[in-house]
Amino acid sequence: MHTIRRFQPEDWASVWPMLQQTFASGDTYAFSPASTEAEIHGAWVELPLATYVACSADGEIIGTYILKPNQPGLGSHVCNCGYVVSDQARGQGIASAMCEHSQTEAIRLGFRAMQFNFVVSTNEGAVRLWQKLGFHIAGTLPGAFRHTGHGYVDAFVMFKQLVG
Amino acid sequence: MHTIRRFQPEDWASVWPMLQQTFASGDTYAFSPASTEAEIHGAWVELPLATYVACSADGEIIGTYILKPNQPGLGSHVCNCGYVVSDQARGQGIASAMCEHSQTEAIRLGFRAMQFNFVVSTNEGAVRLWQKLGFHIAGTLPGAFRHTGHGYVDAFVMFKQLVG
Repeated sequence: MHTIRRFQPEDWASVWPMLQQTFASGDTYAFSPASTEAEIHGAWVELPLATYVACSADGEIIGTYILKPNQPGLGSHVCNCGYVVSDQARGQGIASAMCEHSQTEAIRLGFRAMQFNFVVSTNEGAVRLWQKLGFHIAGTLPGAFRHTGHGYVDAFVMFKQLVG
Repeated sequence: MHTIRRFQPEDWASVWPMLQQTFASGDTYAFSPASTEAEIHGAWVELPLATYVACSADGEIIGTYILKPNQPGLGSHVCNCGYVVSDQARGQGIASAMCEHSQTEAIRLGFRAMQFNFVVSTNEGAVRLWQKLGFHIAGTLPGAFRHTGHGYVDAFVMFKQLVG
């Protein structure tokens, strides 16, 4: 059974290789495969309102996610999240568990909705998972993602109302 | 006849009151009406790739806009812009001129498309203007803007391909 908890500074040694591996593939996140550790630490730990890790039963970190307001001031009631699962932990429902956890956290922190700005259209598993978890495709950004394998592909804006 | 040129540090004394007045109304931009000068300087001058000003025939600054990549790395071929016109210069086509200028600049700088992330749906003049200038509504974000006068209203994601 996995657990999800807030990120601690000492977790970075496990989180960074997982992020690096994910971003290096160039098929899911906009972060350049050439991003430095300092840039990604800024984006994943310093900038967000909160960072979380998912741990396996033996305490190993197998996933991580961030939560932050998607806009300042008059748009700050809508949050944004990003999720990464380690290659070794795929197919165990970790992304789903982190997304459910993030929705609970978002409501607790006072957010009213959640928006993903840049879901790569060819990442079909992710699109289906977010739809299953209540998100809809609010918009399509034509050719907005330069996929390492497929060239320019569409990205989706996905949205879910959390409170009525 | 107005001119549009790159922002210089000494322009801030004219640009800041214009931005402050615009953001204070709470009906077009997400920036909190309570934003500090340092926060807005960061967002308008430090963060963007480039900042511009529109000047009247007598050299007075009557508008300003910013241009920046909308995403890092694999999304950095799509740019984002934000435009502000001084209250005194409305109805003179300054927003339109700045948007046309920004598209030329964006292409010159190597961008392939332009995206607005957060066009307030009740700002109907702006929505119509961007449509006239070739942008389409790529998505609707339900209740994503907390309008000072109208409460929660929709925001639009708008998009234009600049090069084929």
